[in-house]
Amino acid sequence: MNNYVPGPEDKFTFGLWTVGWQARDPFGDATRPPLDPVESVHRLAELGAWGVTFHDDDLLAVEADRDTAIKRFRAALDETGMVAPMLTTNLFTHPVFKDGAFTSNDRSVRRYALRKTMRNLDLAAELGASTYVFWGGREGSETDAAKDVRAALDRYREGLDLLAQYSQDRGYGLRFALEPKPNEPRGDILLPTIGHALGFISTLEHADLVGVNPEVGHEQMANLNFVHGISQALWQDKLFHIDLNGQHGPKFDQDLVFGHGDLLSAFFLVDLLENGGPQGVSPYQGPRHFDYKPGRTEDLTGVWASAADNMRTYLLLKERAAAFRADPEVQQALQDSKVLELQVPTLSPGESYDDLLADRSAFEDFDADLVGERGYGFGRLDQLAIEHLMGAR
Amino acid sequence: MNNYVPGPEDKFTFGLWTVGWQARDPFGDATRPPLDPVESVHRLAELGAWGVTFHDDDLLAVEADRDTAIKRFRAALDETGMVAPMLTTNLFTHPVFKDGAFTSNDRSVRRYALRKTMRNLDLAAELGASTYVFWGGREGSETDAAKDVRAALDRYREGLDLLAQYSQDRGYGLRFALEPKPNEPRGDILLPTIGHALGFISTLEHADLVGVNPEVGHEQMANLNFVHGISQALWQDKLFHIDLNGQHGPKFDQDLVFGHGDLLSAFFLVDLLENGGPQGVSPYQGPRHFDYKPGRTEDLTGVWASAADNMRTYLLLKERAAAFRADPEVQQALQDSKVLELQVPTLSPGESYDDLLADRSAFEDFDADLVGERGYGFGRLDQLAIEHLMGAR
Amino acid sequence: MNNYVPGPEDKFTFGLWTVGWQARDPFGDATRPPLDPVESVHRLAELGAWGVTFHDDDLLAVEADRDTAIKRFRAALDETGMVAPMLTTNLFTHPVFKDGAFTSNDRSVRRYALRKTMRNLDLAAELGASTYVFWGGREGSETDAAKDVRAALDRYREGLDLLAQYSQDRGYGLRFALEPKPNEPRGDILLPTIGHALGFISTLEHADLVGVNPEVGHEQMANLNFVHGISQALWQDKLFHIDLNGQHGPKFDQDLVFGHGDLLSAFFLVDLLENGGPQGVSPYQGPRHFDYKPGRTEDLTGVWASAADNMRTYLLLKERAAAFRADPEVQQALQDSKVLELQVPTLSPGESYDDLLADRSAFEDFDADLVGERGYGFGRLDQLAIEHLMGAR
Amino acid sequence: MNNYVPGPEDKFTFGLWTVGWQARDPFGDATRPPLDPVESVHRLAELGAWGVTFHDDDLLAVEADRDTAIKRFRAALDETGMVAPMLTTNLFTHPVFKDGAFTSNDRSVRRYALRKTMRNLDLAAELGASTYVFWGGREGSETDAAKDVRAALDRYREGLDLLAQYSQDRGYGLRFALEPKPNEPRGDILLPTIGHALGFISTLEHADLVGVNPEVGHEQMANLNFVHGISQALWQDKLFHIDLNGQHGPKFDQDLVFGHGDLLSAFFLVDLLENGGPQGVSPYQGPRHFDYKPGRTEDLTGVWASAADNMRTYLLLKERAAAFRADPEVQQALQDSKVLELQVPTLSPGESYDDLLADRSAFEDFDADLVGERGYGFGRLDQLAIEHLMGAR
Repeated sequence: MNNYVPGPEDKFTFGLWTVGWQARDPFGDATRPPLDPVESVHRLAELGAWGVTFHDDDLLAVEADRDTAIKRFRAALDETGMVAPMLTTNLFTHPVFKDGAFTSNDRSVRRYALRKTMRNLDLAAELGASTYVFWGGREGSETDAAKDVRAALDRYREGLDLLAQYSQDRGYGLRFALEPKPNEPRGDILLPTIGHALGFISTLEHADLVGVNPEVGHEQMANLNFVHGISQALWQDKLFHIDLNGQHGPKFDQDLVFGHGDLLSAFFLVDLLENGGPQGVSPYQGPRHFDYKPGRTEDLTGVWASAADNMRTYLLLKERAAAFRADPEVQQALQDSKVLELQVPTLSPGESYDDLLADRSAFEDFDADLVGERGYGFGRLDQLAIEHLMGAR
Repeated sequence: MNNYVPGPEDKFTFGLWTVGWQARDPFGDATRPPLDPVESVHRLAELGAWGVTFHDDDLLAVEADRDTAIKRFRAALDETGMVAPMLTTNLFTHPVFKDGAFTSNDRSVRRYALRKTMRNLDLAAELGASTYVFWGGREGSETDAAKDVRAALDRYREGLDLLAQYSQDRGYGLRFALEPKPNEPRGDILLPTIGHALGFISTLEHADLVGVNPEVGHEQMANLNFVHGISQALWQDKLFHIDLNGQHGPKFDQDLVFGHGDLLSAFFLVDLLENGGPQGVSPYQGPRHFDYKPGRTEDLTGVWASAADNMRTYLLLKERAAAFRADPEVQQALQDSKVLELQVPTLSPGESYDDLLADRSAFEDFDADLVGERGYGFGRLDQLAIEHLMGAR
Repeated sequence: MNNYVPGPEDKFTFGLWTVGWQARDPFGDATRPPLDPVESVHRLAELGAWGVTFHDDDLLAVEADRDTAIKRFRAALDETGMVAPMLTTNLFTHPVFKDGAFTSNDRSVRRYALRKTMRNLDLAAELGASTYVFWGGREGSETDAAKDVRAALDRYREGLDLLAQYSQDRGYGLRFALEPKPNEPRGDILLPTIGHALGFISTLEHADLVGVNPEVGHEQMANLNFVHGISQALWQDKLFHIDLNGQHGPKFDQDLVFGHGDLLSAFFLVDLLENGGPQGVSPYQGPRHFDYKPGRTEDLTGVWASAADNMRTYLLLKERAAAFRADPEVQQALQDSKVLELQVPTLSPGESYDDLLADRSAFEDFDADLVGERGYGFGRLDQLAIEHLMGAR
Repeated sequence: MNNYVPGPEDKFTFGLWTVGWQARDPFGDATRPPLDPVESVHRLAELGAWGVTFHDDDLLAVEADRDTAIKRFRAALDETGMVAPMLTTNLFTHPVFKDGAFTSNDRSVRRYALRKTMRNLDLAAELGASTYVFWGGREGSETDAAKDVRAALDRYREGLDLLAQYSQDRGYGLRFALEPKPNEPRGDILLPTIGHALGFISTLEHADLVGVNPEVGHEQMANLNFVHGISQALWQDKLFHIDLNGQHGPKFDQDLVFGHGDLLSAFFLVDLLENGGPQGVSPYQGPRHFDYKPGRTEDLTGVWASAADNMRTYLLLKERAAAFRADPEVQQALQDSKVLELQVPTLSPGESYDDLLADRSAFEDFDADLVGERGYGFGRLDQLAIEHLMGAR
């Protein structure tokens, strides 16, 4: 029997900034003390996590000296066997980044941002990370009058091209993952969705090294379907990393525990990540990374409980998604709804458009009215999924 | 003095389905009779429009015979000097398309959709159109259980590759423009935003022939910044066409008259299209296409008035945007806010990342706290824009 | 063992317009034939429904003569033992209502709307209905320039006061339930949320006879918490009726099957309706009314399946909510989170504000910092609820 | 000629927390130093403001001793002639309020909150304020499992009844104004909209002393029409205060400068406040209170400029709204659209429902089809408003 106890094979990772969030919000002071990253590593390891991730500055939470902080952190990794598969840069907290980092109107800020990132790329390589995330939370504007977006994209590209070249030349073996978000803290953020990031990436010099790190809540802040977005990222071979959490639609960034928002979407997401949806092959082998915030109402006991809840909910959903796929009734319903027929190319092998034009059954003799009457039975599939999610089948 | 009278040089175009909308909505019957496309061409010409656009089936509004309908329509174009620079296919009204056209789970529907489109590509070429729009309003789903999104994107690509090849082989000279929309009529539509379309296009065989046709209201339904989206499309040389209208945020698709929604965004949009924003060069030479719906409360007098209002509002905004750019105070404010400095590459000519690493002023000696204190003055720019929009300067 | 088979004791009701929806949407033609109300009554009865509800015009779907239609419908009720506990008026489909019914700018339309409603109030009484619903879908505007909202509210009140007086004088025993909706089909609808309706009701002459009929999706179209809204309606003794369905956040009105949207919210809603939430007493005894639309992709088989799915999902949630409340661990967690302490008045019995001012422990000696450190453990409650919803405990 | 210079007669007021915001946001540190309230009073007076408002704790920004802070603040008022017409309580910043103040699950917190408020009511009276605002930003929840909303409303009512009684008994002459907000900082806030507050108020013991203080951005965060909401508040005689700012739809609380969001809505709002809309009488005589945040990118120069921009934009809109109402073409269009006919009762003087039933012209002989064909001309009104807003007529 499944006891939903996570282990390294589940590849669960957490940002240091998640459990370490002191719960300061736009209208309130911190409700929790700073956490020592060393303690976080140990506690997360005990809970069954596989690794931790961090922004450069996260390491300095209780130890101001960078070298000492790194040394202590490495020791904690060694002691626990935890990995640090992803690193990222804090380019948003300090006032200097108030108009952005790589796309600040102020060129000196852009240069500083590149340097701050390069320093941390060195550390990422040292720690054996394979992925480096870029969340451009300050790259944006509050008024269209103040930002030349095309110039900003030029600078964004310039920065990423330089950093990718640097990583490649140094042999760091890093892949870059852009994390889209529509807004907050800026009124509008550049590359607001998975799609915009994918479009942008196609223009980069090292496009092959750059993918996306989508976050559940970020897409849902624009009320976009996260599973659709992840599917497109996978389809373009660009899902380099993923941030799991929860959100209740278009409002401020809630960063709830995974599943504590749109649970049905979480079910289909896990089904896609673990089972490949109807295609039946898991298409993503990277970390299952939780980027959430323990509620501001919680004390440290609640913090660690919430970390465990993320993993437990994921495993529960994984079990239910497996049962959904294994259910013969579901398989029949997928057939009836022609879901699998969509994998069949529209043209037959070797068929040309001239052949299609010559096929009277495709158009001239096609009875659209009759075909239009046929039901697809999608409601039944939805109901079956919900019942599996509820453990009711 | 500007009298805001539109002329052919303004390149204003209207869909036949806009003025021709009979005002049937999800909860109500039609409030207006069908319009003869011939009359629409004449009326729009009198109002100062440059051209009309249409779906294949729009021509059949009052004349069931396709050949006769085309002949009558061509005659109207000839009589008025109007052009038909864009055509598109109706792949959404008939029940046969209820699960999509190019991505229907039913392969026979996909084949039919390709054929229906090919027939209309022939007509587009015949009429001298240069752009062919694809709005995949039915390509989507209501439940993630019923659509294999990756397979759907395979089929979408297959269809567009085939159609682009067909157009190219036939020498039609058409460019394709995908029109994104997040939802409605489907619960979630594939390629929901400008960004997703740009990402998708980068995977196409004839990517150079395919761009986007963004619509104001469609992006605003996801509360995304339309000016940012258009800027990215321009930056990727993919703004092949544009749909102008109005919307009040995330709700059903309103298709209001241009400017009758987010007026400030409309001002910055016209500034971008006409002036190139701060870059000073108009980056888009195509039609200014209105894709709106006259209110269901209006009779035909109101319909024609609303058509004129779209153009008049555009011209008013154009005049105000020109004054904004010409204002020395604005130019000074742009300098003060370093808006133009963003066009300056972050690295100096010939500078390598090693040079950057060696530049102590960029990092070691950079006084982030001091630079962080400087104000950008963006509020002043926003205020100046608003006052120009209000004709108050 | 629970087999989730509905019966009359569950008080499940359906609108005739739900299963009878022909699936015409803003971009597409009908995909299903009209349904005979007589058949709907029989089919719904077989599925376990307790009753049906309808707009006056729904009865005319396949029989144009009103008297005949009523007679056939009554016979169907008699044959099946179904009840008709709620009726309502169609004041939105016909073009005459394009600017509203009770608040149309055109006074003659307002008079016609009152008459149409009075005629149907007579029928409601005849059929033994106890609730009469008012959905003012056309009471609103697309531009603030065209509607004097204060005058509109005067007219709305005038209309409802008159109708309530009429019903009372005639001894119909009807209670009125206003159904709020933020938009669609109008750009903005008057009384857009549960709250606005409650505020308005407090001004009515027969306020005691008027309550609300909230719909899941309508509140969620404004991204409001439906359970909070229902709680306030209950708290004000104004939940006279309820419309159950599903919605995926701020977009067009989806009318999905109950539970096929925000499943977690549906769980808490059923817990509130059946268990009274933490208060432990069911606060609502009225019909569980489904106001949904079977997907446009479905044929009639899918229609009836979807009707059954509404009820089955409700019963599944009811079972899980009961288990949640019965779980000793949940009860302990509620204690730990002080959820029940909120039922204890803030002042002690007999305590005056002078007593409170004299209580130094309340302020002068209160250690806010210490109390601010205590965790509430809300995350644990959320997780317990989710696990019960998933049938995992 | 109007030079848009504000004066006391304009009744412009600002919260100390607006210009005093240090620009700390969820992802970033403060970019500005604390402001001395004394300086703020002087600077705002110089800019033409009429008064200032504040939370109890705002006075302590640079002076920890409460009595000294109050003394210094009073002196500044005396020196400048500024008034303090509204006060409010900070019941959200300190961790003790993390689960709410009047509705915290913890009874001791509720008692503390009442005491903190009572202390500040004393000060409000001392300073001659007439309005006391309650923004319950922490009254809410992130999960429905953790808050008994009906019990919370009981406690909310208990608290407000007590405070109103206290103010009345003391002869303070204060009116209370509840400020609704849908979310942020809590996942869902109780009394999320103007409507919910109006509904709640109707249940209070001192309902006559309690009204609302709606904020532009708060309603727009739920994509509700602010002008409609204000109209209903006015209609219920409950607009006791108003918070002016700007917002770009459903996202985090932006608190932009007034007009720097939905400009068209701002125009209609000013028209309503100043002209009474089509009714022609100004219905609100209270302060025009700006509750905004100067951009985080601004320094102190930008802060003071932004304060001035709020007032200037308001005055510009006021001028344009006056011209709109004075325009004979607008007056004709209002007639044509029957906007004023909505003020005419639906029943004639003395007419009973029996008379209405006897009026065959109202129903039996009413030609609904014919009336349904008539156009209302609302688009023309919208266009006229936009052109006046743009200073184009």
